[in-house]
Amino acid sequence: MNNEKFVFGVDLGGTAVKMGLFSRDGELVEKWSIPTDKRDKGEHILTDISKSLKNVMRSKGIDKEMILGIGIGVPGPVLDNGVVNSCVNLGWGVKNIEKELSEISGFKVKAGNDANVAALGELFHGSGIGYKNMVMITLGTGIGGGIILNRKIIYGSHGAGGEIGHAVININEKEPCSCGNYGCLEQYCSAGGLVRRAQRILSESDKDSVLRNVEVNAKSVLDAARDGDEVGLEVLHFFGARMGRFLADVAAVIDPQIFVVGGGVSKAGDIIIDTIRDYYKKFAFHACKDAEFKLAKLGNDAGIYGGARLILNK
Amino acid sequence: MNNEKFVFGVDLGGTAVKMGLFSRDGELVEKWSIPTDKRDKGEHILTDISKSLKNVMRSKGIDKEMILGIGIGVPGPVLDNGVVNSCVNLGWGVKNIEKELSEISGFKVKAGNDANVAALGELFHGSGIGYKNMVMITLGTGIGGGIILNRKIIYGSHGAGGEIGHAVININEKEPCSCGNYGCLEQYCSAGGLVRRAQRILSESDKDSVLRNVEVNAKSVLDAARDGDEVGLEVLHFFGARMGRFLADVAAVIDPQIFVVGGGVSKAGDIIIDTIRDYYKKFAFHACKDAEFKLAKLGNDAGIYGGARLILNK
Repeated sequence: MNNEKFVFGVDLGGTAVKMGLFSRDGELVEKWSIPTDKRDKGEHILTDISKSLKNVMRSKGIDKEMILGIGIGVPGPVLDNGVVNSCVNLGWGVKNIEKELSEISGFKVKAGNDANVAALGELFHGSGIGYKNMVMITLGTGIGGGIILNRKIIYGSHGAGGEIGHAVININEKEPCSCGNYGCLEQYCSAGGLVRRAQRILSESDKDSVLRNVEVNAKSVLDAARDGDEVGLEVLHFFGARMGRFLADVAAVIDPQIFVVGGGVSKAGDIIIDTIRDYYKKFAFHACKDAEFKLAKLGNDAGIYGGARLILNK
Repeated sequence: MNNEKFVFGVDLGGTAVKMGLFSRDGELVEKWSIPTDKRDKGEHILTDISKSLKNVMRSKGIDKEMILGIGIGVPGPVLDNGVVNSCVNLGWGVKNIEKELSEISGFKVKAGNDANVAALGELFHGSGIGYKNMVMITLGTGIGGGIILNRKIIYGSHGAGGEIGHAVININEKEPCSCGNYGCLEQYCSAGGLVRRAQRILSESDKDSVLRNVEVNAKSVLDAARDGDEVGLEVLHFFGARMGRFLADVAAVIDPQIFVVGGGVSKAGDIIIDTIRDYYKKFAFHACKDAEFKLAKLGNDAGIYGGARLILNK
């Protein structure tokens, strides 16, 4: 094992820290996770991560010299110098995570925002293989995004690169978004946005719908749409028109080759991709109409794969 | 003059070709222009450019070995491999302009879209000095844009990087944009968009306005706004809300440090910058609210400065 080299990919979430040991080719050797200890303003987290990585090294007979570094995604804005501006979920304020984790572990560290790092993982090991300019959209409770240009994460000047969930698409919205603004993409196209729209249609009309007899959530709404339910389809097209138009505008700015869609809502599958693509083609600038759309492949592993790539692709 | 090196910056337009001789530090030594000969599908253009550059070299006693290369902006989509997909204004179809101009001239050539190259010029020699992530917006008859990240042009996968004028901001628009789509930013926020809005207000209301007594153009509308004219102000805020919201969305994608606004409409000055900034701050994601806004400085020279930088910053 003497000439072998390894890298760690870490995905730091509010509940669990997912970790992976990767070969120098970026192939996963082993993955595991530990709970996120948020006590004392999250001050134990980096030490816990370091200990866990070293336990795995010990159990596998891996020496310090064989480790190229640690790439880590964190749930907050990260500047390209490794400074996290704040991770509300973890209790962190401003923190130079690269420096701190490097001092604790003794390894080189590169950090990024979790959604951005997951996008990098999809580019190198998932649906983005072979592409260099990609936009990833994660549709879940909220909407996350990651912009990859020339195979590198766009961190943004304030660590807000890829914060597409908080693009404002409706200046007349009266209900606030979780971010404090009004009319963010997330308010319409996240799982919660789909539910909000369905409930509004159900309460404001007497349209017949299976959704009157089941719990209204993103899955039941999209299942209903797939079955041709009138209300389900109305929500689907409401969603598709907004996502498609927004992504067409993204194309008019950075003109990517491919859009990769992940997150819980994307589990509905082709109906999501096909609907977004149809509206995208309607609204996109002519030169950009042939951009590709694919479902994400790596699921919850995207973050650790991307973490490894932060080190391997420096 | 033996150790001196020079570079040419060329801005190829539909009417004139602007050219500049620059020092290796990017400082302008001399500028001039020739008419654009669009006969025979524009096939004389590159030869004309090469001849003109060589005339200047001869008159200044500059040898071939002293030229580092030619950077050229062209009015159409350009891929980062130097292929122009089509320049309708010039009669060109698909053309590898870097290869062709290099063969004709004997110099290294690097090409880019004209708006993108102008943005590069503003970054290095105009209002973007000291920044690395910049969005340039050119408000004229149409709306052009250029995205600069890490001091490099974002060409886009189809040469459409920075085509912000054709971002769709209103899916209910009934009149077509010049690009064939409906509801593009350009239809509301270009010079023509301001006039269209003013004329609509004047015809659909009986509001008192100085604009009823003068020719309605972008300048008269913005002059009226500056003087407190009710219709002028209504158009200004219509414009500002749309530009400000759109740029806030751009920030949620790539999070630039600065927005630089140029083009004929920007000659109205601070009223334009202040209005866009006010609405931007209202709509921007919290981390991005402090992005800067400045008027462009280089005017029509931005293209030749940027052209020189295409070579100097390779």
